[in-house]
Amino acid sequence: MSAVLEQVKRARQAGRKLAVASTGLKNRALETMAQVLADRSGPILEANAGDVRRAAQAGMPGPMQQRLGLSEAKLRAAAAGLRQLIELPDPIGEVMARWQRPNGLVIEQVRVPMGVIGIIYESRPNVTVDAASLCLKAGSAAVLRGGREALASNQAIVAALQEALATVELPVDAVQLVADPSREAARELMTLHGELDLLIPRGGAGLIQTVVREASVPVIETGVGNCHVYVDRAADLAMAVHVTVNAKVSNPAVCNAAETLLVHRDVAPSFLPRVAAELGAAGVVLRGCPRTRELVPQAEAAEEADWETEYLDLIMAVKVVDSLEEAIEHINRYGTMHSEAIITGDAQAAGTFLAEVDAATVYHNASTRFTDGFEFGFGAEIGISTQKLHARGPMGLKEICSYKYRVSGDGQVRG
Amino acid sequence: MSAVLEQVKRARQAGRKLAVASTGLKNRALETMAQVLADRSGPILEANAGDVRRAAQAGMPGPMQQRLGLSEAKLRAAAAGLRQLIELPDPIGEVMARWQRPNGLVIEQVRVPMGVIGIIYESRPNVTVDAASLCLKAGSAAVLRGGREALASNQAIVAALQEALATVELPVDAVQLVADPSREAARELMTLHGELDLLIPRGGAGLIQTVVREASVPVIETGVGNCHVYVDRAADLAMAVHVTVNAKVSNPAVCNAAETLLVHRDVAPSFLPRVAAELGAAGVVLRGCPRTRELVPQAEAAEEADWETEYLDLIMAVKVVDSLEEAIEHINRYGTMHSEAIITGDAQAAGTFLAEVDAATVYHNASTRFTDGFEFGFGAEIGISTQKLHARGPMGLKEICSYKYRVSGDGQVRG
Repeated sequence: MSAVLEQVKRARQAGRKLAVASTGLKNRALETMAQVLADRSGPILEANAGDVRRAAQAGMPGPMQQRLGLSEAKLRAAAAGLRQLIELPDPIGEVMARWQRPNGLVIEQVRVPMGVIGIIYESRPNVTVDAASLCLKAGSAAVLRGGREALASNQAIVAALQEALATVELPVDAVQLVADPSREAARELMTLHGELDLLIPRGGAGLIQTVVREASVPVIETGVGNCHVYVDRAADLAMAVHVTVNAKVSNPAVCNAAETLLVHRDVAPSFLPRVAAELGAAGVVLRGCPRTRELVPQAEAAEEADWETEYLDLIMAVKVVDSLEEAIEHINRYGTMHSEAIITGDAQAAGTFLAEVDAATVYHNASTRFTDGFEFGFGAEIGISTQKLHARGPMGLKEICSYKYRVSGDGQVRG
Repeated sequence: MSAVLEQVKRARQAGRKLAVASTGLKNRALETMAQVLADRSGPILEANAGDVRRAAQAGMPGPMQQRLGLSEAKLRAAAAGLRQLIELPDPIGEVMARWQRPNGLVIEQVRVPMGVIGIIYESRPNVTVDAASLCLKAGSAAVLRGGREALASNQAIVAALQEALATVELPVDAVQLVADPSREAARELMTLHGELDLLIPRGGAGLIQTVVREASVPVIETGVGNCHVYVDRAADLAMAVHVTVNAKVSNPAVCNAAETLLVHRDVAPSFLPRVAAELGAAGVVLRGCPRTRELVPQAEAAEEADWETEYLDLIMAVKVVDSLEEAIEHINRYGTMHSEAIITGDAQAAGTFLAEVDAATVYHNASTRFTDGFEFGFGAEIGISTQKLHARGPMGLKEICSYKYRVSGDGQVRG
């Protein structure tokens, strides 16, 4: 048996214990994790400094080094997140539906844990705390495969989390780091069908595509967001400027940031110069279609690839469209089914957009930036699903659970 | 562009039309399908007779020929199924949840179609009608890849269904048969990530394992059932005999039939001879552990492989266990997470079993044979999921849908 398979099998045994652990016990584990993270901040930060030093020597770009780096403040934020999780209702055991059949059988649909959840992610080591703790509260064991560049940090964090599990007498195997940092180990994790119940990739498009292609275990795709704001001919243009700038500029590096602006031709002459001035003032480079460039001469020329690109940067593609229908078609063709907004005062146009745009979250007169478990009020988030199977959009505790049917009778047999 | 990709792309366009089709229009399509199937029964049965003749020449075993064969009665049953679907509520558009955030945003979770659903299945051509019509009512386009041996039958059926779609002015591409019956075409269908929203394999374990291994599109595994009946020491033994015989004998060829009987050692001496006599009278061959064979000398010796086998036949493995815990461990180790039953008068033992057995459907004092969309009251069924992602157990209309979040504001931006 390979080391990875052996780890996952231990996780399954631990998961069976977690599945029947009381809410109180799971919450004590979370509180103890917060305490141990504080107590062990010295060795954790030391291990992290080593990771950052090695990454710098290997030529990692500055922004990635920043994502890799931990601090007392980041560890305090992680501990605060653990304490927020304690406050959230336990999703496990909820009777989601209950009915009786004519033959007397009582059928209950009950929320249960997924079992063993694998998470493959990139450099940010605070994901280790977030992912492990969400899985724990949702009753599932977590098998974590972080980036190789964060290995020492993740080892130190997982050691602290396991210490907390042992303290409350929960199995330490409920939170594990894949010990082997090789690509082969990651590939094996993706193919442990029947051993792993769910695999969530968190990271860039390359990582996610690799997991989707290689995995035989069930996967939830997350996070690639080529999001649009469509400014309809009946838009309040001041609102449209405000929302567009927020959707692009407030945090351009995240998946719910807007990448393309679509503008109805009727309002393009009045709207485009205004929004271009504001976006320009915020440092945004525009790449426009020919009609855009007539109205906004400073815009660069957009190419076909621009409509497909998730820039994650202060760049925005801009296209003038002839109709609501053209906007919807453009989004359904180029979008990644993440977050899509229409700005309009026309209720019928809004209704058509919300119904026909095929995306996890569709907005009327609001910024795409709200697609987020915390902004939705879930109190936690493990990622944003861009697929249609299982969970769509922000995923909190309930979204990483499964259900079972519990059927009670008095000897019924089938005729 | 390959022929399969081109078909799926046309299905996506058709799916967008279906997604916004009214309930009335979808129901008219179903009624028209029932009429056209009756009108075209001649050519359909002729095509089917050709398939059966070729299969017989190629040496297909008799029971498989029977599954392949259609008749006026089977076509009438398929038409009756279409009319039952008309009566079922439309799952699309239901607001599953609605809440308002402190910033005024109103968030609605709305049930929406999956989009394009692929179904890969084996010889029974009536699955073609069932699968296409369930997808239609659930607002999704269906791309069907039936067995090569049923190609002429499926072509004739799909032609009839498309004629009905055209009659009510819905796009005919909403129901398509993969024109190329090669394995390569099936493989391609499994890898059309981003084009196909869901793939459901229906058939034997070999087919399902191939799809799980090869597919990069989201899959729901169905149907492999290594199901158990556990007779606890506190069981009503008359009920236990009745349920065990029903679970094994009433239809041994289906996935919800029981394959292994587990018996608590305290009741084994009184229970096993009784149940063995009844099962023997029904033609069931027993394969027992050593303790079983002491009590039931006519039982053959069970080997390790027997605990893992879905016989789908009049064979039953039997094991005496020392405790409820041993029964649960055995099921969690060898079961396929399908349907598992405990027979007991002890409420606490029942509670432990229902909580700790990890299966789609867990039964207390009832036969495993009830795991079925019709028996659950769903009014329809496209398969029984044995995975934990998305849907578990019997899948009706709601289970092949997705959802989206609809968010309405008045210009909210994220701080």
